[in-house]
Amino acid sequence: MDFNIIRSARAVLHVTSLEASRRFYVDALGFIETYSDSESIYLRGLEEHCHHSLVLKKSEKPALEVISYKVQSEKDLEGLEKLFQSRGLKTKWMEAGTQLALGRALRVQDPAGFPIEFFFKMDKVERYLQRYDLYRGAAIQRIDHFNCAVSDTEKTFEFYKKELGFRCSEYTTTENGKVWAAWIHRKGNVHDVAFMNSEGPRLHHVAFWLSDPMSVIHTCDVLASLGYASSIERGPGRHGLSNAFFLYLRDPDGHRIELYNGDYLTCDPDFEPIRWDLDDPRRQTFWGNAAPDRWFNEASSVLDIQTGEVVVSASPVLEKRKPTFII
Amino acid sequence: MDFNIIRSARAVLHVTSLEASRRFYVDALGFIETYSDSESIYLRGLEEHCHHSLVLKKSEKPALEVISYKVQSEKDLEGLEKLFQSRGLKTKWMEAGTQLALGRALRVQDPAGFPIEFFFKMDKVERYLQRYDLYRGAAIQRIDHFNCAVSDTEKTFEFYKKELGFRCSEYTTTENGKVWAAWIHRKGNVHDVAFMNSEGPRLHHVAFWLSDPMSVIHTCDVLASLGYASSIERGPGRHGLSNAFFLYLRDPDGHRIELYNGDYLTCDPDFEPIRWDLDDPRRQTFWGNAAPDRWFNEASSVLDIQTGEVVVSASPVLEKRKPTFII
Amino acid sequence: MDFNIIRSARAVLHVTSLEASRRFYVDALGFIETYSDSESIYLRGLEEHCHHSLVLKKSEKPALEVISYKVQSEKDLEGLEKLFQSRGLKTKWMEAGTQLALGRALRVQDPAGFPIEFFFKMDKVERYLQRYDLYRGAAIQRIDHFNCAVSDTEKTFEFYKKELGFRCSEYTTTENGKVWAAWIHRKGNVHDVAFMNSEGPRLHHVAFWLSDPMSVIHTCDVLASLGYASSIERGPGRHGLSNAFFLYLRDPDGHRIELYNGDYLTCDPDFEPIRWDLDDPRRQTFWGNAAPDRWFNEASSVLDIQTGEVVVSASPVLEKRKPTFII
Amino acid sequence: MDFNIIRSARAVLHVTSLEASRRFYVDALGFIETYSDSESIYLRGLEEHCHHSLVLKKSEKPALEVISYKVQSEKDLEGLEKLFQSRGLKTKWMEAGTQLALGRALRVQDPAGFPIEFFFKMDKVERYLQRYDLYRGAAIQRIDHFNCAVSDTEKTFEFYKKELGFRCSEYTTTENGKVWAAWIHRKGNVHDVAFMNSEGPRLHHVAFWLSDPMSVIHTCDVLASLGYASSIERGPGRHGLSNAFFLYLRDPDGHRIELYNGDYLTCDPDFEPIRWDLDDPRRQTFWGNAAPDRWFNEASSVLDIQTGEVVVSASPVLEKRKPTFII
Repeated sequence: MDFNIIRSARAVLHVTSLEASRRFYVDALGFIETYSDSESIYLRGLEEHCHHSLVLKKSEKPALEVISYKVQSEKDLEGLEKLFQSRGLKTKWMEAGTQLALGRALRVQDPAGFPIEFFFKMDKVERYLQRYDLYRGAAIQRIDHFNCAVSDTEKTFEFYKKELGFRCSEYTTTENGKVWAAWIHRKGNVHDVAFMNSEGPRLHHVAFWLSDPMSVIHTCDVLASLGYASSIERGPGRHGLSNAFFLYLRDPDGHRIELYNGDYLTCDPDFEPIRWDLDDPRRQTFWGNAAPDRWFNEASSVLDIQTGEVVVSASPVLEKRKPTFII
Repeated sequence: MDFNIIRSARAVLHVTSLEASRRFYVDALGFIETYSDSESIYLRGLEEHCHHSLVLKKSEKPALEVISYKVQSEKDLEGLEKLFQSRGLKTKWMEAGTQLALGRALRVQDPAGFPIEFFFKMDKVERYLQRYDLYRGAAIQRIDHFNCAVSDTEKTFEFYKKELGFRCSEYTTTENGKVWAAWIHRKGNVHDVAFMNSEGPRLHHVAFWLSDPMSVIHTCDVLASLGYASSIERGPGRHGLSNAFFLYLRDPDGHRIELYNGDYLTCDPDFEPIRWDLDDPRRQTFWGNAAPDRWFNEASSVLDIQTGEVVVSASPVLEKRKPTFII
Repeated sequence: MDFNIIRSARAVLHVTSLEASRRFYVDALGFIETYSDSESIYLRGLEEHCHHSLVLKKSEKPALEVISYKVQSEKDLEGLEKLFQSRGLKTKWMEAGTQLALGRALRVQDPAGFPIEFFFKMDKVERYLQRYDLYRGAAIQRIDHFNCAVSDTEKTFEFYKKELGFRCSEYTTTENGKVWAAWIHRKGNVHDVAFMNSEGPRLHHVAFWLSDPMSVIHTCDVLASLGYASSIERGPGRHGLSNAFFLYLRDPDGHRIELYNGDYLTCDPDFEPIRWDLDDPRRQTFWGNAAPDRWFNEASSVLDIQTGEVVVSASPVLEKRKPTFII
Repeated sequence: MDFNIIRSARAVLHVTSLEASRRFYVDALGFIETYSDSESIYLRGLEEHCHHSLVLKKSEKPALEVISYKVQSEKDLEGLEKLFQSRGLKTKWMEAGTQLALGRALRVQDPAGFPIEFFFKMDKVERYLQRYDLYRGAAIQRIDHFNCAVSDTEKTFEFYKKELGFRCSEYTTTENGKVWAAWIHRKGNVHDVAFMNSEGPRLHHVAFWLSDPMSVIHTCDVLASLGYASSIERGPGRHGLSNAFFLYLRDPDGHRIELYNGDYLTCDPDFEPIRWDLDDPRRQTFWGNAAPDRWFNEASSVLDIQTGEVVVSASPVLEKRKPTFII
């Protein structure tokens, strides 16, 4: 491959009220606000020395504008352009200076229809990891991964694995051996992105890393005390898949955020992906608590990188089933 | 009053299999087994220097035989006998030597129909509080309280308050000002016993104190790894009432156990009980997670102190509603 | 006895700078500031529904003005006055209205020379227990106990036990059976006050309860990030005595504050005090870390209730030894 | 480079009593014993799916036999042999079958004199990550890093960086700009190995990852309850460098073990190493607690890969100073 994808790096979400978003993300969850103006808010976690990992843009309708990966060097972008063009997929350059704090970036529409961005350069800022006096709410540390609902998991999975160099940590198959969902990574933990069989393309959630399990508990308490109890959608609980201690939240626009801690190292080249049967009860949440229906059915719309319109989603190619193992 | 009730001290539960119970209570939850034979198991928490706080007796059917309170001195038992007899309630002496490790005890049937026992003397054993090498599973510290479903909360509450000297920490009232549920104590934290409007008398749960919130999380993990995921009925979560961090479990016979940590001090004589409206949304679980139906509807039968038969339960005097605030 | 002491309730400390104190107690430790003016700051913990548990008064020199206990009712104050007068000890009435938020109070100089206050009535304020959005730093919950250096522990201990009704949870004796230190309580946990053999009367520390062990760790991190690393004098660690997880801090004036979590219930009337030999290695900090010398040698001066002058301290009656077991 | 080093993978320590070692590592710290016989014990953490990460070999004297790194593939070993031979450094092949559970391995003596091993293949075993019922003591998750005392940090650091491809996360320099200590990694967190200016080559410690900070606290409690209080050498505390929450232990033979949790991600190609001045007070332990002298002065001997004799250590090239920042 002519490129090296390093890690999931940021998401750009459209929200309908910056004020409501700030109360949720900054005041309640404890994101650090690097920059904001009347059009957008740029947020980062306490561990992050880069400018941001989450952008909230004011818009008419909630949607995912793009999810971004950091690459090894700027020249990797050319290799990626070549790949996506050779597959007949849309590409679009975002020149340096057109996006705040970001160098030249390549946007593409991946085979599942997701708006994806690759970049190397992002401005650096002071890291607040040891500014414990600023820890608040969830004390968000860093971005961890994306979870994407796709209509054809197997096709998407193959593309990311073979063409983009992602490696699989865990996956689920149907009784016929079809891949139902897959957790894949570049950075050496369980995932940078997961795909699952559903109506797609839709963004299921963006996940952020917390420093320890008690931060998850404290988040629930703080959310409740601020009137956000109804934003707690699922958890806290332990995932069977990934082993992470998790909490799922819905932001004021319905975007789903996962708070996540406690998965494991996957950097060994001979790490063997863990396979789960779709009907294996152990797939489910480790403690056995059922997730609510809306967790399965609702997800964020994603936008076309060229038109800015919502990408029409398609029905899943595999029969739809309550995917209780999704994390 | 001629007596001084100190604290909730033990429960005697009938179970159908001592082996299944031992696996659950000792191997999974980490109770210390003080003594056992073919008929019963005597358990205590790591902090307890008394012989036991939970007795499991082999029986045909699961039931509560009795819940016991420790009193200030043996002569207090006479005062209590006088009180219950003056109210026309059943009493029965259990002489020293008839119950393992226990001195003379008085059993009564309280106005709600519950089998209650008072005693002063219990054998002492080594306290394992600092035997951290023995901490396992939930690392149960000590018994904390009982929760009782009663058909007439107000009547029961008044009796415990006025005749037995319990003090109220929190309570819930209907729109007509009727007491729907009450949390009352002797030992200076939120409760030794709670009563709630339901079909009763039935035992809703027995609660044990854990040393910290992470023990609750670890309990879920251990239960799941041992195949007890389905025993986790509700939680972990934070109670609005009492502020406790909780987990509800069902033992192999369906008896409900609460693991509990984090309430507050109530010893001030001018502490004002906290009143909740039945329709106040803040009554509910602090984080907003709904409890499952079986948590509301299912409870353990209680036995008559004289006949040993199940006490027939009566419908609640207040209209039955989903009592989401029960803790 | 004609009175019933409920619990340790507040300390009044003299400090040289209210601004420096506020930064330490409010900004760093997370006390709630109920009231302040140019002369004093009134602080409370998140759990406390009373007006304050710590008063900081601006003064030329740091000192302890008084430590206060809450009693069962206002008439108990008369019984206490009688007792102290009958022993020839100084007493002084502080009428209602002379102290902010406090009803009538009786001040006395106890047999060890400590300025002690008894009161029943204190104004009530909103309790912030579930205002998790306000939790900051140590998230102080409530006052727990005082630790007092006295020249004659045995005499002081006997007075508190026999005349004031305190009950002993743990104590240390020399090889000759002399009481070297004692932990005594009214409220049913390990202590409301401890006495130890040293130059006295001097206040060793005031302790506040935290909700869980992770709050102790977070406190260290927050203090360090705010430049208070040198205020951390000892810990975090586990006490052998009391089993508490602890941290000792020195405030800007050198007053010692203990953050404390995890002791046990002592309400049983037949609880047997735990005796430790002065030379028993298990007396020491459970994990074996040695405390620094200044922890042993330094303590706050205490004031005469009538003259306001520093009470001259006397040498300990028992040979001075490094009291590694003090908690 | 013709090779790709993946991560620190195992240490082989010589110990004088397997029984004493088992009690410490297995019973107290909670390592999983994969295999043992009369000559050795093979241990792994709960997260590890490889056969072992720590080997204890019975020997006359305590020493480090070798520290091992996993590489991308078996052919990488050839490239590494070439490199070390071209530098005139000792190499030695350990053919597959000569070491339990290990494929072909290359041992070398690095420029600092350390016995180093590279291998690709290690047998796989069941991963116990979700066997929470087996969690005990520290609940060791996985190996994290080695810390090595070397007489010439700068020379060693340059070799690892330029010739072996390690990347620097943090480092300390003297006032003259000399590198005093360096933390370098391959796997994307703070370090796989650290070098510091001291008498060397000696092994300062091997570090293992814990799942959360409360596991560190629980470790102290369990160690103390089992009589290992004197094995706790330093901590718990927070490192300024790396931000990790740490505990240093000495095993029965004096080998130093660090328990470690909470550092950060370093996988960004443009991550800028954090430089610390040797005299910067912030270098020190974040909370300000001083480490004991023995922590600075004592370390394990290392062996020659060919003769098996102790490698004679040399004085540091930089003036020896209390390296309070070592982690």
